Amino acid sequence: MADKPVRGLADVVAASTALSDVDGAAGRLYYRGYDIHDLAGRTSFEETVHLLVRGSLPTRAELDALTAELAEARTIGASAQAVLPYVTRSGTPMEALRTLVSALSVDDPDASDSGPEANRRKAIRLVAQMPLLVATYHAARTGGTLPDPVDDLGIAGNFLLQITGRRPDARTTEMFDECLVLHADHTMNASTFTARVVAATLSDMHSAITAAMGALRGPLHGGANEAVIKTLQSIEGGVDGVEPFVRKTLDSHGKLMGFGHRVYKTEDPRATHLRRMSEELAGITGDPSYYQMSRRMEEVVHDTKGLYPNVDFFAASVYYYLGIPIDLFTPVFAVSRMSGWTAHVIEQHLDNRLIRPDSEYIGERDQKWVPIEER
Amino acid sequence: MADKPVRGLADVVAASTALSDVDGAAGRLYYRGYDIHDLAGRTSFEETVHLLVRGSLPTRAELDALTAELAEARTIGASAQAVLPYVTRSGTPMEALRTLVSALSVDDPDASDSGPEANRRKAIRLVAQMPLLVATYHAARTGGTLPDPVDDLGIAGNFLLQITGRRPDARTTEMFDECLVLHADHTMNASTFTARVVAATLSDMHSAITAAMGALRGPLHGGANEAVIKTLQSIEGGVDGVEPFVRKTLDSHGKLMGFGHRVYKTEDPRATHLRRMSEELAGITGDPSYYQMSRRMEEVVHDTKGLYPNVDFFAASVYYYLGIPIDLFTPVFAVSRMSGWTAHVIEQHLDNRLIRPDSEYIGERDQKWVPIEER
Repeated sequence: MADKPVRGLADVVAASTALSDVDGAAGRLYYRGYDIHDLAGRTSFEETVHLLVRGSLPTRAELDALTAELAEARTIGASAQAVLPYVTRSGTPMEALRTLVSALSVDDPDASDSGPEANRRKAIRLVAQMPLLVATYHAARTGGTLPDPVDDLGIAGNFLLQITGRRPDARTTEMFDECLVLHADHTMNASTFTARVVAATLSDMHSAITAAMGALRGPLHGGANEAVIKTLQSIEGGVDGVEPFVRKTLDSHGKLMGFGHRVYKTEDPRATHLRRMSEELAGITGDPSYYQMSRRMEEVVHDTKGLYPNVDFFAASVYYYLGIPIDLFTPVFAVSRMSGWTAHVIEQHLDNRLIRPDSEYIGERDQKWVPIEER
Repeated sequence: MADKPVRGLADVVAASTALSDVDGAAGRLYYRGYDIHDLAGRTSFEETVHLLVRGSLPTRAELDALTAELAEARTIGASAQAVLPYVTRSGTPMEALRTLVSALSVDDPDASDSGPEANRRKAIRLVAQMPLLVATYHAARTGGTLPDPVDDLGIAGNFLLQITGRRPDARTTEMFDECLVLHADHTMNASTFTARVVAATLSDMHSAITAAMGALRGPLHGGANEAVIKTLQSIEGGVDGVEPFVRKTLDSHGKLMGFGHRVYKTEDPRATHLRRMSEELAGITGDPSYYQMSRRMEEVVHDTKGLYPNVDFFAASVYYYLGIPIDLFTPVFAVSRMSGWTAHVIEQHLDNRLIRPDSEYIGERDQKWVPIEER
C-alpha cells in the first residue's frame, strides 16, 4: 500500500455516535445533547447511566426502576470469585480487573446473545458489577472485610463505603458521584474505540468491555490520573518546588501527565468541575497541598507550553482527597466509563460495519526464500 | 464534528508495519517481504514465528534455540488453572479462552514490563501457551485426559496429538503446520488492529492479546470458519443441494460466510493452498463430500456474485478433515495468529502514538436540562 498512514488516526472520523460530542475549539462536552455543565452536580451517575444506555434522562419512576435493577445485578459470579485469590497477585489492579471482567461473562445469562435487549441487560449488569468488583478485589488483596452495600446510597456512596470502610458524608458522596458523571463518556477515546472495533466483528459485550479495560490500563489513557498524583508526590519543596520541577522536566523533554488533549484546544470542561472539587476537598480535609501544587503546576505549564489540564489532572487530587488508594484511580475511571463503553457497544451493534483499516508496508520487499541449511 | 465517517475505516491507512503486506488487486500476501506462496509448505510454523517475532527466517541453530524456548514456555500458570473448571461452562470456547489468556499474565514474570526484550519473551511464551491452553480447555470440558506433548513433534503435531488423542502421521502434521503458517499474520485485520489500539495506550502485551481474542471471536472475523462448516452441514442433498441453497440464500439477502474480503479483489492466496489441502484430505479420509460441496459452492458464488473464497472458506473443510472439533476452529485461528498479534504489539510499542480517532455526532442537540420532577 502506497498511502501514508494517519498516525494515531488523528482527526479521522471513525464512527457515528449519538452518545457524546466534543467541541474541542470551544471546550464543550455533551452527552446526548446535554451540556456537561448542565449535568455536572445536578444529575446523578444513575441518571447518566439511564441517559447513555437507555437514551433519556429518567423520570422518577424510571430512575427508581433502574436503581432497583442495579441493586439486583450487584453480584459477582462463581467464575470471577474463583480466580479472585489468584489475580490479587497481579502487578496492577487493572490487570486483575481485566481478567475478572472477562470471567463475568461465564455467569451472565445473556453472554452469547448480542441482540439489543440482551445488550441493554448486560450493560446494566456490568455497570452494577464494576464498582463491586473493584471493592471485592481491594478487600481480597488487603485482607480487609467488604462492607455490605446499603440501600440508601447509590453507586458512588456504596463504592466509597466499600473501599474506605466508612460511610461517606452526603457532600463527599455528591462530589464522587459528580466525578463518575464527568468520566462517563467521551466520544472515540482509545478504550471506547477499542470496544467498538471488537463489537464490530459482531463479537459480544464482554469481549468488547474486556478489551476496553486493557486499553484503559495504558498510561497514555486511563493510567494518566495515577501518574499525575505520583508526579505531585515526587516534587520536593511543595508549591515552591513545582516550577523548578516543571522546567527541569520540559528541559529534558520529559512528559508531564495530565496536560493536553487530542481534541480539546482550550480547557477541558471536565477539568473546570474537578478543579472546583479539588479546592473544596482541600478545605474539607484541611490538606491544601495537592490542590495548591496542582494550581501552581497548571499556571507554570500554561505559561511555558500553552497547555491546559485535561480530565486526569484534577481528578488525581480529588480521588486522593476522597481517600481512594492511588492504584485504584484507573479502576475508578472504569467504574464510570463502563456506562459509556456499554452504550457504545449497543450502538455499534445496531448499525454495524466491520472496522478493518489498511496499513502501509515499510519493511523489506522481494525476499528470496532459501532452505534453512542455506541461510 | 461535521465530517462524515469512513465507515469501517475502509481504505484508511491506520498504521505502518514491516510484518506483512497484501496486494489486494494481484492477490498476493507477504510476510516480511517473503511471498506466502514461497513459505507455504516449505517453512514450518516455528520458522514463521521466528520470522514475525524475531525478524528473520532462522538458521538451523536459531530454530533449535527457538524450539527449546517454546518447549520450556509450554506451561499454564496457577491463575488460568484456577478458573479453568469454571470457564468450561462458557457458551463458546473463545469466551473461555479470552479469560484464560487474560489470566496468564498473573503468572508471567514480565507481565508489567513492556520493553522490547520483555515483549519478545512474552510473545514466545504466548505462542507456546496458546495451543496448550486450547487443548487443556478441551480436555477439561470433555473430561478427557490430555496427552503429554512429545519432543519430536512441533506445535502443529503436538496440538493435533493433544486434541485428537492420537499421534498424527507425518503428512497430516505437515498440512496442519501449513495451515498455521497461512493464518499467522494479515496486516490490519480487526483483531490485529484491536491489539495495536490497546498497545498504543502503552498498555501491556496481555491486555492487547486478550482484546484481540475478543475481536477474533466475532462471526465477521475469526468466527467465519466455523460458520462455513455449519453452512455446509446444513445443506440438504450434498453437492446437488449447493446451487439451490446459494440461490435461496442470496435471494433472501442472506450472507454467505467465507466469501469476499475487504482487501482482496481476486483470489485470496491462502485459499489456493487450503483448497489443495482440502482436496488431498478428502482423498486421505475417503470422505470427498465437504471438498466437493465447497468446490461447487465456490463455482456458484463466483458465477452469481463474482466473489472469491477467502481464507476461512477452505480452512473449514480442512480443519474438519483433520478431526478438529468444529467449535475449536476459531481457537485454532488464534493458535496461529498469536504469532502475528504479538509481533504487532512489539512493533507498535517500538514506534508508538496513541490511536484516538474522531467521531461524527448524529444525535439530538441543544437538549435543555430540567429537574427530574419536571421530566
